[in-house]
Amino acid sequence: MNTSSDSAVLLLSCPDRAGLVSRITHFIFERGGNITDLDEHVSDDENMFTIRVTWDMQNFTISGADLEDAIRPLAKEFKAQWQVTFFDEKPRLAIFVSKYDHCLQDILWRHKAGELYCDISMIVSNHPDLKPLADFYKVPFNVVPVTKETKAAQEQKELDLLRENKIDTIVLARYMQILSDNFVKHYPNQIINIHHSFLPAFIGGNPYKQAYQRGVKIIGATSHYVTADLDEGPIIEQDVIRVSHKDSVQDMVRKGRDLERVVLARALKAHLEKRILVNKSRTIVFE
Amino acid sequence: MNTSSDSAVLLLSCPDRAGLVSRITHFIFERGGNITDLDEHVSDDENMFTIRVTWDMQNFTISGADLEDAIRPLAKEFKAQWQVTFFDEKPRLAIFVSKYDHCLQDILWRHKAGELYCDISMIVSNHPDLKPLADFYKVPFNVVPVTKETKAAQEQKELDLLRENKIDTIVLARYMQILSDNFVKHYPNQIINIHHSFLPAFIGGNPYKQAYQRGVKIIGATSHYVTADLDEGPIIEQDVIRVSHKDSVQDMVRKGRDLERVVLARALKAHLEKRILVNKSRTIVFE
Amino acid sequence: MNTSSDSAVLLLSCPDRAGLVSRITHFIFERGGNITDLDEHVSDDENMFTIRVTWDMQNFTISGADLEDAIRPLAKEFKAQWQVTFFDEKPRLAIFVSKYDHCLQDILWRHKAGELYCDISMIVSNHPDLKPLADFYKVPFNVVPVTKETKAAQEQKELDLLRENKIDTIVLARYMQILSDNFVKHYPNQIINIHHSFLPAFIGGNPYKQAYQRGVKIIGATSHYVTADLDEGPIIEQDVIRVSHKDSVQDMVRKGRDLERVVLARALKAHLEKRILVNKSRTIVFE
Amino acid sequence: MNTSSDSAVLLLSCPDRAGLVSRITHFIFERGGNITDLDEHVSDDENMFTIRVTWDMQNFTISGADLEDAIRPLAKEFKAQWQVTFFDEKPRLAIFVSKYDHCLQDILWRHKAGELYCDISMIVSNHPDLKPLADFYKVPFNVVPVTKETKAAQEQKELDLLRENKIDTIVLARYMQILSDNFVKHYPNQIINIHHSFLPAFIGGNPYKQAYQRGVKIIGATSHYVTADLDEGPIIEQDVIRVSHKDSVQDMVRKGRDLERVVLARALKAHLEKRILVNKSRTIVFE
Repeated sequence: MNTSSDSAVLLLSCPDRAGLVSRITHFIFERGGNITDLDEHVSDDENMFTIRVTWDMQNFTISGADLEDAIRPLAKEFKAQWQVTFFDEKPRLAIFVSKYDHCLQDILWRHKAGELYCDISMIVSNHPDLKPLADFYKVPFNVVPVTKETKAAQEQKELDLLRENKIDTIVLARYMQILSDNFVKHYPNQIINIHHSFLPAFIGGNPYKQAYQRGVKIIGATSHYVTADLDEGPIIEQDVIRVSHKDSVQDMVRKGRDLERVVLARALKAHLEKRILVNKSRTIVFE
Repeated sequence: MNTSSDSAVLLLSCPDRAGLVSRITHFIFERGGNITDLDEHVSDDENMFTIRVTWDMQNFTISGADLEDAIRPLAKEFKAQWQVTFFDEKPRLAIFVSKYDHCLQDILWRHKAGELYCDISMIVSNHPDLKPLADFYKVPFNVVPVTKETKAAQEQKELDLLRENKIDTIVLARYMQILSDNFVKHYPNQIINIHHSFLPAFIGGNPYKQAYQRGVKIIGATSHYVTADLDEGPIIEQDVIRVSHKDSVQDMVRKGRDLERVVLARALKAHLEKRILVNKSRTIVFE
Repeated sequence: MNTSSDSAVLLLSCPDRAGLVSRITHFIFERGGNITDLDEHVSDDENMFTIRVTWDMQNFTISGADLEDAIRPLAKEFKAQWQVTFFDEKPRLAIFVSKYDHCLQDILWRHKAGELYCDISMIVSNHPDLKPLADFYKVPFNVVPVTKETKAAQEQKELDLLRENKIDTIVLARYMQILSDNFVKHYPNQIINIHHSFLPAFIGGNPYKQAYQRGVKIIGATSHYVTADLDEGPIIEQDVIRVSHKDSVQDMVRKGRDLERVVLARALKAHLEKRILVNKSRTIVFE
Repeated sequence: MNTSSDSAVLLLSCPDRAGLVSRITHFIFERGGNITDLDEHVSDDENMFTIRVTWDMQNFTISGADLEDAIRPLAKEFKAQWQVTFFDEKPRLAIFVSKYDHCLQDILWRHKAGELYCDISMIVSNHPDLKPLADFYKVPFNVVPVTKETKAAQEQKELDLLRENKIDTIVLARYMQILSDNFVKHYPNQIINIHHSFLPAFIGGNPYKQAYQRGVKIIGATSHYVTADLDEGPIIEQDVIRVSHKDSVQDMVRKGRDLERVVLARALKAHLEKRILVNKSRTIVFE
């Protein structure tokens, strides 16, 4: 939660070798940074080194703006996949919705409560229904209706809106449209979706009905990054709830709403606090 | 838990209509039974009536042996699927195992602790490894090795053993052989398996490796009745546990053991206490 | 969830004896009711009979208004504690709040989503802060400031408001005032509170700080009926969440908000659906 | 889980200041160690630095035997509380039991399954009942009966046994005797107990009965280090399970057994893998 304007975070993964933690922490120390949280692990199965380290920038001799350049040589030497963030400017968020309000209102409320380190810059919807909620929280609401025929054009309109508003991250808060590959490739690992099942079970439409018919005793929700393959993106967070034979499909929908909103919120929070490293089709989420 | 020799239980499902509960409970009352637990529900989605009712047989005017005949006319009138049990004689259980001991030893211990209403009459294994454990609990242990070539013959040998020992229910406690359709059809809804994944996710072999590769954040275990379709039988019980990026496949195997044994034990307990109605591909499990 | 205007529910407990279920279900059947859900149990420890039964009133020969009179003789004979409800008119709810909005907004949202069978008639607060939220959901908002000196007078004002608005049930949604015994006795088993700890642990003020200091690994929230003894009322619902050494008191407060709102919502839902029987200091909550 | 004979682990806490991680990791690196897992955190509430770091000793230039001496100057400079362990020799465990077997058999089974990094050197009991279980796992079993009159003498006998067997850690696996302060002070933070409630709720005797009477909806189990104050020692691990009005005290005892054994096993595993730092009355448990 150290996301004050005085802190920075480095996420990095690379093939393991001796001295990596020492090099990284020494780099921070000799430039005046005080490390407040560090989590490092070498996976047994792949010999991959992963680290998340947060430090206090108050007495740091490098400015936030120069941070990336300063770390690049080290990362290059390590052949690392990496990302450094200086928490001075909040990332800008766009939320895509259709008609369901439970995820949207939960994100807006958490943001107001100070749980999410971001600016919510805009809401995009293919329906006008949720505008009053956006108004209550004073977030601009853009209606961009989509039909089969207009989809490509409308997506372009959305991309323009996102670019104009300098959006960093997109949350699909039960947005009932499938984004094209073209759209997705503009925001790699920056579009977060919530799927209302325990993936990889019940991919596709009507997962609660599928769950009812299969007779599972527990239902779930899954938040993941959006990739070109529907419901196949790297999983960020999941949770579950017990159901019984007394629960109709409609009861599952109701119980599921509670899951969907917390799972999406936790995934978004982890993303904004830079706790997520994506390694091919999997995520590493630092606690 | 009222499985003393003084109680009986009726499980029944049928198309709903007015008066069913009244008829059933009056039937019990006028024959001197005192109902100690009753759970009835009409499903919204299918208009199906389901009931589980337990009563005290101490002053019942019908003997346990005549119970089935006495209820048959009522059940026939209701066009019901039903099962009545008088808890005088414990059902006889056979446990099938290979080399993993965690589920076997959990069942044996719970049985000794009085949690499971049954006699454990025999253990069948394709390997001799777990004989000492069987000996400790004084349960006969039969080694029936299976190869591709001998499978049909060995299954026949197993079926003979089961028949000779008047086995009612079979538990596959991580038995690493797939039973033939022929075998399965001898014990409809009487063979309970434990699958080490949250079904329907990760059907088939090596589910923990599949789970690792997909990057799920939660792993599960599923106990189900065995049908001709592998891993497709009616689900009885499921549970889950959280995993992180620090967990290797081997860690998942370890965490999974804890799940597998409790999920299998709960499913078996529900089965023995006659808490399960099978309705096509789904179960109704009364609490 | 069968709370349509065509259904009724009976909650009843009494010393056990033979024939109770039969008598009750026959009573319903012979008056044309179709039972849709019934849950009955005799406790081993106290030999107490408890039942919740729901039936369809469409063809019932007794009107909702006459239901209570019709059942009274039966209940009297059984020496029962009982309550019958005809779901024609929604109960009227008042929500008491101070400055925290998480529970209030959750209840308002769930009500709008159709999860709670009630009318939310008014909000009472000792602070004006949450008026905009009340306005958004179009619920009358009454500010009744309380100081040590004015407490008795202000409580009388609140009682007047409640009576004028024919309030049935009061929810204390993190209301930071302790109600007097006099106030409480006007609404026996009709005032629902949320306490931010796993009761009976951490009674009183600052439970998250107490939890932090004791070093517990799991924190909880508890919803209970309010009685004269603070935090000692019958518990309706509880839930928990894991914490680690990385969680500060402030992190516990944040995690706790998620617990508090769902625990309070589940307790309120159970209350409104007439799933709760109070037996001395304990509740029986029917699933 | 890196507890092979090639690895070492350092646990350390001290007042925070800049450069601590860098100093520690550099110390390890320049002596040829490869860090495989590191978890460091500075608590917001107390400005306390805590770290657990594991490294590969294969090419380390300091022998395991000299490790403590090598680190002492650094730790002294940091004014740290610390502990370094070279996983060459397994710690020696004694298990104290009375008549309940569920925790004992779970530990013995897990040990055999390779989950616990220790030698189980002896079992001590005030009753002979569990000797057959000890025999099955080939662990020496010592009966030391205790009465009010003989307690002091028998504890001395136990202390002698422990010293002779070079016991490092003692597990009270539902041992129904209270150890004297004198006994406890011989093994500071080395005696692990399991209490069958969610502490601090239901301290003392018969916690399941207390839980039943209070009407809680969830019961728990707590594992903690034993200190002079009964049930007040630093909590290591807790877990919970849901109960309903259908659960008698006896059902809670049964459900509780499942909790007790896993909670105790997790606490013991964390202790043996050197994941626990004790800070006054609280523990920090590294994942």
